[in-house]
Parts: sequence; structure tokens; C-alpha cells
Amino acid sequence: MSAHSTGAEVSNDEQAIRELVDKWFDASKQGDVATLLTLMADDVIFMTPGREPFGKEAFTAGGQRPLLKEGTSNIQELEVFGDQAWMRNHLDLVIEFPNGESKRHSGYVLTILKKNPAGQWVISRDANLVMPKE
Amino acid sequence: MSAHSTGAEVSNDEQAIRELVDKWFDASKQGDVATLLTLMADDVIFMTPGREPFGKEAFTAGGQRPLLKEGTSNIQELEVFGDQAWMRNHLDLVIEFPNGESKRHSGYVLTILKKNPAGQWVISRDANLVMPKE
Repeated sequence: MSAHSTGAEVSNDEQAIRELVDKWFDASKQGDVATLLTLMADDVIFMTPGREPFGKEAFTAGGQRPLLKEGTSNIQELEVFGDQAWMRNHLDLVIEFPNGESKRHSGYVLTILKKNPAGQWVISRDANLVMPKE
Repeated sequence: MSAHSTGAEVSNDEQAIRELVDKWFDASKQGDVATLLTLMADDVIFMTPGREPFGKEAFTAGGQRPLLKEGTSNIQELEVFGDQAWMRNHLDLVIEFPNGESKRHSGYVLTILKKNPAGQWVISRDANLVMPKE
């Protein structure tokens, strides 16, 4: 639990979103694409610097992709509005590329989440400013 | 008016946010910092690739800064939830640097907006993925 939440009651929605982030990290470390797909909306849009936005299909396309070796997430802000929410997160990652090279990345992510009809929170829009360190 | 809005009633809030974007571009072209400051929340946080997040103070710090020469904004999505909203925008910019060099930039921006107590929409959080072109 982050310092941000200390002394304040954490809503069920906020708790569910924090668990979603934890699940995302665990699945990313294991290369568990099937689980990642359950954590995003069908019409999800991921935005990253210098690349066209992409959706779910980028995860199912297969092929070798960078693997998350280590990752820490530090949620800076999280606000829930009914069935939608936004979150500002800071990530520190070690990513291993298919050639075996590992590199540290860090940066902020601004995410829109929504609660799907089954009552599960999923990632809807994601602007990812994580960049290689130095 | 974008194709997105054709045939759908545009709410007053959506219209006000579109006007905010237009005002932002006009003020940026004129280097009109006083107007820009009225378009952001006091606790605004701007996030850009490879730089620490910054707030209002970065606009009042003075000094020579890049000037927006041309800019077109293409709002992809805009959703309003009571006193908050999120918007996904695509920008095409020509930016002139203090050394006189002009460069095209383009990319997406994910923005959280809020309605302040006076009923005016302002920028609250902004993740800007606009990068130099090629």
C-alpha cells in the first residue's frame, strides 16, 4: 500500500484497480499474454512515443517481444468516477530484449480505466511516457 | 467540427472543451502566456517524454521558449463525466526554436480536464506524446 492511501479509506474500486496493476506486472514478467488480454478493454488504445497507437491485436500478434524482468509501480494519483477512472503512475522497469540485452526504463503513464459490464476494471486508454534511462 | 460529432448533439461541455483547445492554440501562436495560464488548473501536471513532469510555474518562468508557428488539432475522442473529462487528441505542429530553426512535430495527447468552481473547463493532467517528425 502506498503512502498516498495511508489514513484514507481505500474504496473497493481503487483497490480493484491497484490489483489490476499488480496483475499486469506479474503477467508481463511471465510473458502471460492470455492474462494481459483479460486486463484490457476490447477497444483499448495504447499510445507510446514515436509509434502509432496500438490495441489488443499487438499482444496477440505473437513473435518475440521485450520481456519485463523487473518492475516497480508507484501510483501517484487515482480518481474513480462511476464506471470510469484515471490513474497517473510512475514505472521503473528492467526490460530484456530478444538479443539478451537488458535496459532500465522509467517514466510516467496516464491511464483511463473503465468497469466492464461484468464489473471488472480494465485498461481503456493508456499514454505511456516510459523511456530508456540515460 | 470533426466527423466524430456529425449527426450527434454536441453538449455544451464538449463545445466548451473544443473552444478551450482552440484558445490554447491561438494563445500558443501569439506567445500569450497570460491566456495560457487561464486555461490550466492551478495544480496542472504536464507530462512529456524524457522530461520531469511540470506545472504552471514552467509557463511563468520566462526565458526564450519554442514558439508554435502552425498547429492543427484533430480531437479523436472526448468523454465528459460530470465535472471531469478526458480527451484524446492528435496534433500536427510546426515549432520554431529560439535559434530560428523550424521543425514539424506530431503525435497524440491524452488529457484530463476538469470544470473549475467558476464553471470553466481547464486542463488538469496532460500526457503529451508529440515528437519531432522523422
